[in-house]
Amino acid sequence: MGQSYTQLEKQFKRIHVLGDAASMLQWDMSAMMPSGGANARTEQMALLATLRHNMMTSAEIGDLMAAAEKEADLDDWQAANLKEMQRGYIHATALDEDLVEAISRATSSCEQIWRKARSQGDFKSVSPALKEVLNLTRKAAQAKSEKLGCSLYDALLDQYEPDGKSADIDPIFARMEAFLPDFLQAVLEKQKENSFTLPEGPFAIDQQKALGKTFMDALGFDFDHGRLDVSLHPFCGGTPDDVRLTTRYDEADFTSALMGVLHETGHALYERGLPVEWRNQPVGSARGMSLHESQSLLVEMQVCRSDAFLKYAVPIMKETFNGSGPSWSLDNFTQLYRAVKPGFIRVDADEVTYPAHVILRYKLERALIEGDMEVEDIPAAWNESMQKILGITPPSDREGCLQDIHWYDGAWGYFPTYTLGAMTAAQIFAAAKKALPTVEEDITQGDFSPLLDWLRSNIHGYGSKLSGRDLLIKSTGQPLEPEVFIAHLKDRYLA
Amino acid sequence: MGQSYTQLEKQFKRIHVLGDAASMLQWDMSAMMPSGGANARTEQMALLATLRHNMMTSAEIGDLMAAAEKEADLDDWQAANLKEMQRGYIHATALDEDLVEAISRATSSCEQIWRKARSQGDFKSVSPALKEVLNLTRKAAQAKSEKLGCSLYDALLDQYEPDGKSADIDPIFARMEAFLPDFLQAVLEKQKENSFTLPEGPFAIDQQKALGKTFMDALGFDFDHGRLDVSLHPFCGGTPDDVRLTTRYDEADFTSALMGVLHETGHALYERGLPVEWRNQPVGSARGMSLHESQSLLVEMQVCRSDAFLKYAVPIMKETFNGSGPSWSLDNFTQLYRAVKPGFIRVDADEVTYPAHVILRYKLERALIEGDMEVEDIPAAWNESMQKILGITPPSDREGCLQDIHWYDGAWGYFPTYTLGAMTAAQIFAAAKKALPTVEEDITQGDFSPLLDWLRSNIHGYGSKLSGRDLLIKSTGQPLEPEVFIAHLKDRYLA
Repeated sequence: MGQSYTQLEKQFKRIHVLGDAASMLQWDMSAMMPSGGANARTEQMALLATLRHNMMTSAEIGDLMAAAEKEADLDDWQAANLKEMQRGYIHATALDEDLVEAISRATSSCEQIWRKARSQGDFKSVSPALKEVLNLTRKAAQAKSEKLGCSLYDALLDQYEPDGKSADIDPIFARMEAFLPDFLQAVLEKQKENSFTLPEGPFAIDQQKALGKTFMDALGFDFDHGRLDVSLHPFCGGTPDDVRLTTRYDEADFTSALMGVLHETGHALYERGLPVEWRNQPVGSARGMSLHESQSLLVEMQVCRSDAFLKYAVPIMKETFNGSGPSWSLDNFTQLYRAVKPGFIRVDADEVTYPAHVILRYKLERALIEGDMEVEDIPAAWNESMQKILGITPPSDREGCLQDIHWYDGAWGYFPTYTLGAMTAAQIFAAAKKALPTVEEDITQGDFSPLLDWLRSNIHGYGSKLSGRDLLIKSTGQPLEPEVFIAHLKDRYLA
Repeated sequence: MGQSYTQLEKQFKRIHVLGDAASMLQWDMSAMMPSGGANARTEQMALLATLRHNMMTSAEIGDLMAAAEKEADLDDWQAANLKEMQRGYIHATALDEDLVEAISRATSSCEQIWRKARSQGDFKSVSPALKEVLNLTRKAAQAKSEKLGCSLYDALLDQYEPDGKSADIDPIFARMEAFLPDFLQAVLEKQKENSFTLPEGPFAIDQQKALGKTFMDALGFDFDHGRLDVSLHPFCGGTPDDVRLTTRYDEADFTSALMGVLHETGHALYERGLPVEWRNQPVGSARGMSLHESQSLLVEMQVCRSDAFLKYAVPIMKETFNGSGPSWSLDNFTQLYRAVKPGFIRVDADEVTYPAHVILRYKLERALIEGDMEVEDIPAAWNESMQKILGITPPSDREGCLQDIHWYDGAWGYFPTYTLGAMTAAQIFAAAKKALPTVEEDITQGDFSPLLDWLRSNIHGYGSKLSGRDLLIKSTGQPLEPEVFIAHLKDRYLA
């Protein structure tokens, strides 16, 4: 390989290592830091971000990138690495400094206002700030779309979902939108027969933590390379060799935090399985947010809410908490972990109604970015869409368009990855089951290693070598196909 | 103030903030990181150190420093800040890159060899590596002494004890060396009458931690700006606004970890009390290692092993662990926390014998740096000195010249600060008692705020504005005076 490419690898290693340092400090901020450390930490994070941005946008990187393109002797991995370097460079350099700073100020101010507006259900108070954010985001989309040669919305989507195209998403979401209302009614009708009771607590936090760690360990989480701690908003952070999971415990109900831990474990296994030989290079990073979410949802939704897993897990839960009585039966947990109920809040939504929340947001943010809608139209459009797909109308904007931080914080183009992730998870798990005919029996035995090995060979180990689409074709035989997810829903909720 | 000085403040702020980030990652490495994160963390730490070194040694800093010296309108704080900037710049630029790299390699290799040599008591196996470290350290001392205009040893001392001079230390240590042998015999004679018993455990770690936090809180540690955690080697890390203490618990004996927590609390209170308006500037940092150690020893030795403190603390200890019987009496704890016994190991030494360990090392490392002694002479010289001051001879080098990491790791010039710190603590506490006539009664009431307020006004709040010597003159009326420490020892151990 050529000298310029080799130099680029050195530079990008520094950029990645600096990102790792920032990631650890971010984890600490959420899981460990006392409140009084906030100002000092903000300074540290801002400086690391600035240094990283300066490295990424240096003239040297630009020159090396141009020279490396002419060096024709790269292998597949190196070529993919160079492509991802270029993507990173384009996103980092597309906006001029004034715009970057304006966005940073506008989102940080808007987020502050939003916190108050949300608690008071007062959309009007935040709409001027949101208009400013939208206005600047449109400018950013414009600048990036020119460099990337794609639509405004796709330029934003590309930040989270590399090479993602709304032209691919539209028919998939349209199929879901057509499917969901009738299906939901059928599920609700069927679940009328069911009832479940929440096991009665209190459940000591130490025991909840030990239980979570038991399942994490079984799933393949390596505690020599990671930790489980507590934070207000659970997340998976850290670095591939030092994965930091967090959760939040409720002494009255262990079932929700437990499923949260398993969800984050899916993210963690993906990070941990990224190709070791490409650590600290763009091609060694996770492919994008859809695929990341697919790995957490594969563990949480496909595996851990399955009959196979619950057969294994419920006796362990019962033993941990010394549970007795009907609420500790397998049947009760199955109903509990599969209850479907339309609600206003996305993050509380079940697997069936979740796509409705996402499709609504996707359509709105696309229209907003493309200039087909304005900020003041959001509340009415939101409520109309909720009524149409889920048959419910939020009592106030607090339970409606004020609930999520994303738009107020500048994260436009992120929402579709949640549902693309859920669908990808179904498709990957279906392929894994085909390749591993005994995988469900293995899971019931508490043996997750065949599944994890398969995921490592077919998904995790590819890093960002292939596009998300190509990786899915390679591992499952076809691009994202909504019918696989639909079949999963039918099988789980109507069979 | 001039433009160059203002620019320097901006640059040094970045340097300090980067140091803060590294400090948090260092804490995490010791207190939180799983073993498998070590390689990634080493990369992060090395990169931050390189970036920091590059900022510190940039031509821009050199030019600004030269220009700022000509700007005559600096106030006292700014002038002191510029002086500390210059000191940092000299230390950072004195060695050429080859020497820096050679030292880094030699110390890291020597430290590895030392770990094995220590466990086997085999000094010969590490002496070639130690010779290499000494050789390079002599070169570093040479380079720094030329820039600082001081002796070889003082050039190394200056890294830990700014403006410290062996010419000042020599008479102080000579006085201690003359005083100690007879005094020690007298104390041992007197303590023959005494006996104490260790309260019987086990002592649950949660309760030990809660007890430590109770006392930390009483002493003025602000948990909105800090934490208490566990690490193999207890330390005080983090940043002034987010101070991270660690300790190590022993379920069989709570008394040692507790005193360790109180010691680190002293360090923490100093960090926390540094001048807020000079955060992230050299003049806003702690003055040096002697003064830092004086603050930990003031809390541990002067305050927490005093009658006044034990009267307050023993009933709380007893209540915490539900203790009963004679081992929980005030008298027993007083004897336990003041037991004097000559031993081989510095870190286990009591207040009376500790100076002997330090004086021995100081004399040896000075002779070694100045070329008056060679590595192969160390074991015999060590053992002779131990016999002379403490009347004991180590059974092997493991309990002798192999016990401390400092020389093997390249930390030459550090040792004297421990005993200078102990003496400084005695002198500062004596001044505080004079200024605050009721301070001991306050302590017995569990009220430490008058003492902390005094320390903040007279010590902590000065940062690095004054030299250690000038600060001591200002706060106690005289430079370091061994008779104050000697009076303290006599009063506590022979009265």
